Amino acid sequence: MNTIGITYRTTIFGTSHGPAVGCVIDGCPPGIRISRDKVQSQLDRRRPGYSDVSSPRKERDRVILLSGLIDSVTTGAPISAFVENKNAESEAYDVFRSIPRPGHADYTAISKYGEHHDHRGGGMFSGRMTIPLVISGSIAMQALESRGIHVAAHSLKIGRISAKSNPPVPNIERIARKNDVGCADPSLAKLMKNEILDAKRDQDSVGGIIECIATGLPVGAGEPFFDSVESLLSQLIFSIPAIKGVEFGAGFQVADMRGSENNDQFKIRNGKIVTETNNSGGILGGITNGMPLILRVAVKPTPSIAKTQKSVNLQKMKETDLQVTGRHDPCIVPRAVPVVESVVSIGILDLMITGGLF
Amino acid sequence: MNTIGITYRTTIFGTSHGPAVGCVIDGCPPGIRISRDKVQSQLDRRRPGYSDVSSPRKERDRVILLSGLIDSVTTGAPISAFVENKNAESEAYDVFRSIPRPGHADYTAISKYGEHHDHRGGGMFSGRMTIPLVISGSIAMQALESRGIHVAAHSLKIGRISAKSNPPVPNIERIARKNDVGCADPSLAKLMKNEILDAKRDQDSVGGIIECIATGLPVGAGEPFFDSVESLLSQLIFSIPAIKGVEFGAGFQVADMRGSENNDQFKIRNGKIVTETNNSGGILGGITNGMPLILRVAVKPTPSIAKTQKSVNLQKMKETDLQVTGRHDPCIVPRAVPVVESVVSIGILDLMITGGLF
Amino acid sequence: MNTIGITYRTTIFGTSHGPAVGCVIDGCPPGIRISRDKVQSQLDRRRPGYSDVSSPRKERDRVILLSGLIDSVTTGAPISAFVENKNAESEAYDVFRSIPRPGHADYTAISKYGEHHDHRGGGMFSGRMTIPLVISGSIAMQALESRGIHVAAHSLKIGRISAKSNPPVPNIERIARKNDVGCADPSLAKLMKNEILDAKRDQDSVGGIIECIATGLPVGAGEPFFDSVESLLSQLIFSIPAIKGVEFGAGFQVADMRGSENNDQFKIRNGKIVTETNNSGGILGGITNGMPLILRVAVKPTPSIAKTQKSVNLQKMKETDLQVTGRHDPCIVPRAVPVVESVVSIGILDLMITGGLF
Amino acid sequence: MNTIGITYRTTIFGTSHGPAVGCVIDGCPPGIRISRDKVQSQLDRRRPGYSDVSSPRKERDRVILLSGLIDSVTTGAPISAFVENKNAESEAYDVFRSIPRPGHADYTAISKYGEHHDHRGGGMFSGRMTIPLVISGSIAMQALESRGIHVAAHSLKIGRISAKSNPPVPNIERIARKNDVGCADPSLAKLMKNEILDAKRDQDSVGGIIECIATGLPVGAGEPFFDSVESLLSQLIFSIPAIKGVEFGAGFQVADMRGSENNDQFKIRNGKIVTETNNSGGILGGITNGMPLILRVAVKPTPSIAKTQKSVNLQKMKETDLQVTGRHDPCIVPRAVPVVESVVSIGILDLMITGGLF
Repeated sequence: MNTIGITYRTTIFGTSHGPAVGCVIDGCPPGIRISRDKVQSQLDRRRPGYSDVSSPRKERDRVILLSGLIDSVTTGAPISAFVENKNAESEAYDVFRSIPRPGHADYTAISKYGEHHDHRGGGMFSGRMTIPLVISGSIAMQALESRGIHVAAHSLKIGRISAKSNPPVPNIERIARKNDVGCADPSLAKLMKNEILDAKRDQDSVGGIIECIATGLPVGAGEPFFDSVESLLSQLIFSIPAIKGVEFGAGFQVADMRGSENNDQFKIRNGKIVTETNNSGGILGGITNGMPLILRVAVKPTPSIAKTQKSVNLQKMKETDLQVTGRHDPCIVPRAVPVVESVVSIGILDLMITGGLF
Repeated sequence: MNTIGITYRTTIFGTSHGPAVGCVIDGCPPGIRISRDKVQSQLDRRRPGYSDVSSPRKERDRVILLSGLIDSVTTGAPISAFVENKNAESEAYDVFRSIPRPGHADYTAISKYGEHHDHRGGGMFSGRMTIPLVISGSIAMQALESRGIHVAAHSLKIGRISAKSNPPVPNIERIARKNDVGCADPSLAKLMKNEILDAKRDQDSVGGIIECIATGLPVGAGEPFFDSVESLLSQLIFSIPAIKGVEFGAGFQVADMRGSENNDQFKIRNGKIVTETNNSGGILGGITNGMPLILRVAVKPTPSIAKTQKSVNLQKMKETDLQVTGRHDPCIVPRAVPVVESVVSIGILDLMITGGLF
Repeated sequence: MNTIGITYRTTIFGTSHGPAVGCVIDGCPPGIRISRDKVQSQLDRRRPGYSDVSSPRKERDRVILLSGLIDSVTTGAPISAFVENKNAESEAYDVFRSIPRPGHADYTAISKYGEHHDHRGGGMFSGRMTIPLVISGSIAMQALESRGIHVAAHSLKIGRISAKSNPPVPNIERIARKNDVGCADPSLAKLMKNEILDAKRDQDSVGGIIECIATGLPVGAGEPFFDSVESLLSQLIFSIPAIKGVEFGAGFQVADMRGSENNDQFKIRNGKIVTETNNSGGILGGITNGMPLILRVAVKPTPSIAKTQKSVNLQKMKETDLQVTGRHDPCIVPRAVPVVESVVSIGILDLMITGGLF
Repeated sequence: MNTIGITYRTTIFGTSHGPAVGCVIDGCPPGIRISRDKVQSQLDRRRPGYSDVSSPRKERDRVILLSGLIDSVTTGAPISAFVENKNAESEAYDVFRSIPRPGHADYTAISKYGEHHDHRGGGMFSGRMTIPLVISGSIAMQALESRGIHVAAHSLKIGRISAKSNPPVPNIERIARKNDVGCADPSLAKLMKNEILDAKRDQDSVGGIIECIATGLPVGAGEPFFDSVESLLSQLIFSIPAIKGVEFGAGFQVADMRGSENNDQFKIRNGKIVTETNNSGGILGGITNGMPLILRVAVKPTPSIAKTQKSVNLQKMKETDLQVTGRHDPCIVPRAVPVVESVVSIGILDLMITGGLF
């Protein structure tokens, strides 16, 4: 189903080329001040067309809040919000019903849903469906900020350029949110941009890695097993198109460590229990331990490339060449950064409310 | 909550040192023949004490099936099953309520649940809670096998020894299931075993990577967004203790590829649409595309090590040394292999039933 | 939460005096033709102000469909729809925060939600929140009609006037839907109207009983226990404000019958298995048996009456008199008729889809 | 699915003639003392064979608690419990696969589930499946009693004998729980027993009405709409076999009242806000108002009667006579009394926990 969350529950709706996309949020606590401008600002970061590293499509994406707030304060009733779709070129997508694009959901969607499927613009599989996630996520983010919790993501790697892991959160908020590749290191931001423009010039695309950090968390968010922090966050993260891997803390590097290296030993600092290292990424037994939560996600290179590719004509069951024209991002990592922040915020808020910590 | 699944729903119960651990499975289709022996055999692979690379604890773990079957065939009614707990040494765990073990859930569990928490043997956070997952998983696995779908996992890496990715599934079933480290390459199996014994000798532990492959899948399992194949499987996988990363297909390597390399181009072979490469791991848009499903998970080194570690006495709020005695696995990768097979089977079966494909 | 349904799932949002009320429907099968006019026509029957037996408030209640349809055919993606709120007089409701109206949710809502609660117009407890139910219900009704299933409700009793139980469904559709009290007998319709006008003249209100009948049902809709036809329909029905009782088939009269009278004996007519009587109301063991489904609901008299009543000033904790002014229905039975049809349609469609019967 | 509840969630399993029936309870708060004897005592009241007004089947129904308690105190982990099945005569039920019993689920179950359905003893539709409800319910009841909340049901009507509505709860606990028909008036208890014995003599059965009262409730349990007190309790109640109607407070009598009569006016007594009457049955807007919760349910006469009835041979599609032999209750009202108490306790506890009131 199109609903996520245990207590803070988001239902998303719409398709990329229908009249609107939006969401309903159930379970948001009452009394939280929500700035519509902050929601809009996260949507603007996700929006294409604002820089030469992204698609030139013009989407205005103005959020309309339909219910759940009085005088910008949540009432506890469901919040509903949507963004109207504009500037769609549906016809451009018709060909992909016959000849599926490599790396896209065309083939699986047609096989699964058949003729009534709304294929235009990728339908339900469009990156545009991350808009409702950003709406819900930026509301969650503001709820968390009201408790001193900050969630910030940055581009750790784009193409061949890798930045330093685990930069200070204020740096991310100050630097990464300002440049057009989402990098917390200004000099590397320039190189990352070049990687993207290189790929564009080659009619190709590049992928990367996004890192997300949350600070100020209480001890105790997360439930054992299926609603562990890792379980819930990974479920949310993998609902973002193009993500192929998720790791927490030391992640895949744990395979190269012995227990004595990987274990984060406890100590007391300023009367608080902390750990010397943070290989666990702030999570023990699926529950936050008060240290910063750190995770990384792998973003695949945009599958829509201008280069000729091999595909199959499904009607004729014949192999054929395919050239994907249209306006596409040579790299979606920068635009995915606020989406990752959003789903991580949704998951953390949900687990805090569920655990009686909000 | 302790329930997972959309249509094939598993609820787990018990704690490691209570009278029993078990599960109730709701939504299993009627008419499937289930061999109790096959369930037991998967439990035996998970069980410690059968080899010198695992803990010498003697757990018999005989599964008792309480409901849902007549003459070994499912009826469609809920299946319930449990395993009695034996050989528990509860007192050994008392100290960890005061002095939490690094890398364990002791600290977060006590912070979250307080005094009524069942701490003995790790309570709900114990590896023993994977028993219900293996019970449900081996039932799911048998249901899948009845449709020609095979799910098989193997130890891709233990300590410094790495095997070849993506071996043939029959090799895994024939070789990896027979040796005591779960490796599909007999010569590397020996080296992996040495890695574990080395660590044991050093009062330390090692981690690794498990790879799981599913073949014979139909096109169309998985739902967009929150119940995508990646979302549901990662939620299940991260409910296994000690997992810190999950990747599908090319996984984190997508960050090093361009779109033209990463896209799996379509072709026709034997009248069937297949892809030339399988970087997607058999999943497009969150939905199976009929190619083998491939995923890898990072398993951290067992946190219980004999070496002295630093911790904190929570009552006295004082730093202290801690030596974890008791019987522990120097590496849990081999025992986690059947658990990974189990949760992947649970997830695939659930998505197939949900999608009307079973 | 504000979501109902197993497979056909409706999430409602909005409050009576916010900008809009609406719903998101997840799980509606693709390929069903939906007439917007039919949705509007059910909303019009629910709407006050179209007759002198209802409130003179002018609500236009034009439905806007945001997503889920292409060319009036469902795509399988979530359907979202809303109605803008107009003509609200919020200030009129301020007094009820201090002095709760007898028979209304004022007292319990303030006790439960406190200061951030949206009290205006009854907030989430307003009869206006049945609009989303009617939107979802009339979509479900059209889906059912496409399979030859008809759901029709009528006013069985208003005040002292009782009509005959179990009239032919075409009569309901032809007669009851046309007169302004929802009665299937034209002569009684007049008397029922008088009952309402009498009560209005006396600054009072009257209640009644609504009967709902569904014909053309397959055998097999409904699940054992918690999702039995009776369980799911009663859950839906009691979410309509002012309902205080629900009975199926012979209902409370079963207490006066012996088993030999109450049992519906089986026979064969036209090659089909039917029952001689229909005391079960078309449901055996919680599952439809192919006979018409019949249920009745008790609707209390509108609690908002012009007569002076006793209440308590919550701030001063002092008893006080209260006169509820404003525009109110002297009887909500006629307006509740399409709402009952709607929730019954929602429940039947959900159980049919869930049971693989749609 | 076989799970009920928002926060206090009960999953039931087993069939009447399999090895066991039981339940898993998730979400029970930690720290509550549970007497196994009290659970057993409620099971004993539900059990047949202890009096000449019920079936002479001998079921011992000893409850076994598998998990979730340490030293009789809940830990917060899932509670699992079961009762072994004994004394089953499966063969007696074989005939009903061909010739369905009037008033039973045989016909709908066979139509829905086909050949793998566990028909023996009514399978999942057996009254024996109320055992898990009584287990969970008596645990919930003990949790409620620890907060001064009492839930008590009694036989309001059996056959032609009607008792007085709304007796004092201590009378129910003292008198109704002691006699074998569950009546709070000792002299009527005798007459009710005669009604049952009369029906038995005539190879027939009688139905009745059960009333359930809960006192000591806080203001604020229940959620708007789908999880209103009425919605959740009716969903639970209709999962008990043989219930055909539910009403709250004045119930169906509201149809005979005007608003001025039906509205419960507020007043202050002993510094507490109460209502002068209690036509609402303690529920306003779906939320408890602190007055006693009152509801009544209609129980149909046992469908299993010795008298010859008409049915249909499903294999031959031919009308035929049917004589149901075997051991049956001439009235199930007395045995249903503790089941009604149980499901009402489950629902109230769930809504209190969900609303943060426990």
